[in-house]
Amino acid sequence: MTDAVSLITAKRDGRRLADDDIRWLFDAYAAGAVADEQMSALLMAIFFRGLDRAELRTWTAAMIASGDRLDLSSLTRPTVDKHSTGGVGDKVSLILAPLVAACGAAVPQLSGRGLGHTGGTLDKLESIPGFRAALSPEETVAVLASAGCVICAAGSGLAPADRRLYALRDVTGTVESIPLISSSIMSKKIAEGTGALVLDVKVGTGAFMKSLDRARELAQTMVALGEEHGVRTRALLTPMDTPLGRAVGNAVEVEESLAALRGEGPEDLMEVTLALARAMLDLTGLDADPAAAIADGRALMAYRTMIRAQGGDPDALLALAPHIRPSLPAPATGWLTRLDALAVGTAAWRLGAGRARKEDPVSAAAGIICLAKPGDWVHEGQPLLELRADDEDRFAPALAALAAQDGVVEVSEHEPPPPAPAVIEVIG
Amino acid sequence: MTDAVSLITAKRDGRRLADDDIRWLFDAYAAGAVADEQMSALLMAIFFRGLDRAELRTWTAAMIASGDRLDLSSLTRPTVDKHSTGGVGDKVSLILAPLVAACGAAVPQLSGRGLGHTGGTLDKLESIPGFRAALSPEETVAVLASAGCVICAAGSGLAPADRRLYALRDVTGTVESIPLISSSIMSKKIAEGTGALVLDVKVGTGAFMKSLDRARELAQTMVALGEEHGVRTRALLTPMDTPLGRAVGNAVEVEESLAALRGEGPEDLMEVTLALARAMLDLTGLDADPAAAIADGRALMAYRTMIRAQGGDPDALLALAPHIRPSLPAPATGWLTRLDALAVGTAAWRLGAGRARKEDPVSAAAGIICLAKPGDWVHEGQPLLELRADDEDRFAPALAALAAQDGVVEVSEHEPPPPAPAVIEVIG
Repeated sequence: MTDAVSLITAKRDGRRLADDDIRWLFDAYAAGAVADEQMSALLMAIFFRGLDRAELRTWTAAMIASGDRLDLSSLTRPTVDKHSTGGVGDKVSLILAPLVAACGAAVPQLSGRGLGHTGGTLDKLESIPGFRAALSPEETVAVLASAGCVICAAGSGLAPADRRLYALRDVTGTVESIPLISSSIMSKKIAEGTGALVLDVKVGTGAFMKSLDRARELAQTMVALGEEHGVRTRALLTPMDTPLGRAVGNAVEVEESLAALRGEGPEDLMEVTLALARAMLDLTGLDADPAAAIADGRALMAYRTMIRAQGGDPDALLALAPHIRPSLPAPATGWLTRLDALAVGTAAWRLGAGRARKEDPVSAAAGIICLAKPGDWVHEGQPLLELRADDEDRFAPALAALAAQDGVVEVSEHEPPPPAPAVIEVIG
Repeated sequence: MTDAVSLITAKRDGRRLADDDIRWLFDAYAAGAVADEQMSALLMAIFFRGLDRAELRTWTAAMIASGDRLDLSSLTRPTVDKHSTGGVGDKVSLILAPLVAACGAAVPQLSGRGLGHTGGTLDKLESIPGFRAALSPEETVAVLASAGCVICAAGSGLAPADRRLYALRDVTGTVESIPLISSSIMSKKIAEGTGALVLDVKVGTGAFMKSLDRARELAQTMVALGEEHGVRTRALLTPMDTPLGRAVGNAVEVEESLAALRGEGPEDLMEVTLALARAMLDLTGLDADPAAAIADGRALMAYRTMIRAQGGDPDALLALAPHIRPSLPAPATGWLTRLDALAVGTAAWRLGAGRARKEDPVSAAAGIICLAKPGDWVHEGQPLLELRADDEDRFAPALAALAAQDGVVEVSEHEPPPPAPAVIEVIG
């Protein structure tokens, strides 16, 4: 028998938490015997002291045990999912899920919403008229069985302890902890019942992890956690210094995803999507060529099937912003060497594409089109971005976000930037 | 303008909190805009990162500003108080306050109750029939004016933020932080309005600070805080490896204090009491001999005046426990070299003299008499303690506490223990 203060002081003083203590903690927290102020003190102690591999395994298992697991055993196809740590213009899930489904796997993509400068897959899909992100477990499995993929919200029954802990971490300065991030992501993915998982761990100014070392540590921690819980897991570290593709927002990213499914996507977006697709297929043992599934239209067909199965109309016109303003003139003529992801993501958020708090609404039409990307030749004064908003008042805060820091845009008259790799490193 | 998460993450990452941020924090906490779970996360971050001298000064000032200050300006005598960090058998306040009053100072001794193995001055005095610890600010000043001293509870109006923070720290594993301990103690003492303050910082097994280094750091921090707030402050580091005096409990400590005021106190108790009295008189500039004030009965008279002014009957018989059991046989014949303060304090607590939670009652009669003290010659099998309880069932847990650890008692056949100094070090 233990108590909350003993657990907190043990972790505070750098001692390990025993398996039974961790299980007791989650049971007592669910029962109200451990208070939020005690949990937040423990989370801060974990921020400083960490959790070792065995503690983290038990911690994650306790979060999974706090709720239900999705039962995907009725599916005949191998299951594989992808999770991204979040970036700017990261619409990969919209392309990848139908693409991998078209190659023979079942992709149960339980997703989240955007927060701050990073977009959320569900927000993007909800710009499609009729699309429903909230499905029951039975509907989730049914869409998966019929379309080969589903992109929906993680139901409240999956790892409810994570939901509560995340809300607490958000207000107590305890988000940026690798064990806490890892257990939060992996508890939901393991509870979702996928057999394999590819993690897209973004690195760079627009990513949650700004440094390669931290990104690598996060990736290694999550891969180990997945494998320990019987999920074949691999992580790709991918760059997030500039937006992925050209569109940043909700409807604009759906449009770009459709272009990609037609084989007309921008090169950086296609490269990372195909690399992730190959990793997913490799983990499931399926021998299929994802580029071919785009070329012959099977990926687009899977996308349309999924959207329809979730109530959406894949042929509906998407919202177009009534106010469009070319902005951010190139400071010189030369090669664009830098267009900062964080600044662009923050500007899109200010335009209405993102939210500051979980319960805020987002605009379907607001967003940004990058008129040039690093590596392009630009002329002095040429607008680099096109801002879109429902309301002209949104332009000023967006422009302020772009002007708030130095180095948002850099142009070199001498040489183009070195080509950015689609994948920096593979772990697992 | 700031917000709670920015403050928490700043401290978490080792940055300073600005004066305005600290003031904002306490205002917002009082107003309910900062939640307990946010404050507890910040307290844990402070546990790890500390507060520098300027932060601590502002933090303490904000705690003082959260409530009222006692106005002692009507008193003609110089004011001086003493605070002890708590020990076992520490009845010094009961003797010291009237003693220093008898020497010409006014002693506003706002005290606390016992928690865990350490006793509380108010619990001891409340074993005197009729004694009232809860006085209004006006009553406090009136008793002080008439008796020269008062020992009462710190009213709820003094540093209410400390009351709330302490309750939070108690359940979130954030008690053991030098800046948080210092600000808690000093905010109350400064708000109480004393002109000078002597701190008795106990060091040893029965003290809050187990090591001399930590005790010294705490003392230095509190002395600096007092001086910065205009209170002449000095700290004495004193030993707490064995109980002070022979009595541990409530009524039994009142009896021993009365003996001390009659000049019949045990040597260790008298030495530390006189050293603290001299320091208090020195800070107030009064040239008086405390030993003489005991010898001629003035200190006892001041004590009786104070007890009466607070509703107590100084001639009333005190509670005597119905069950008395000689215990803890000496393991060998020789010099007693060790009688552990923590074990004796814990045993007294188990007998009913102390409490586990603030709201628990305590027994007036329960306690322990040390039949031998380190330095005494003892015979194998001779009982070293006399346990007293209202209920025989209390003996077993008390004896278990004494048996729970090795080294509670040590006897040497070869040599007596080195004499323990009454004062280890003086700071300020």
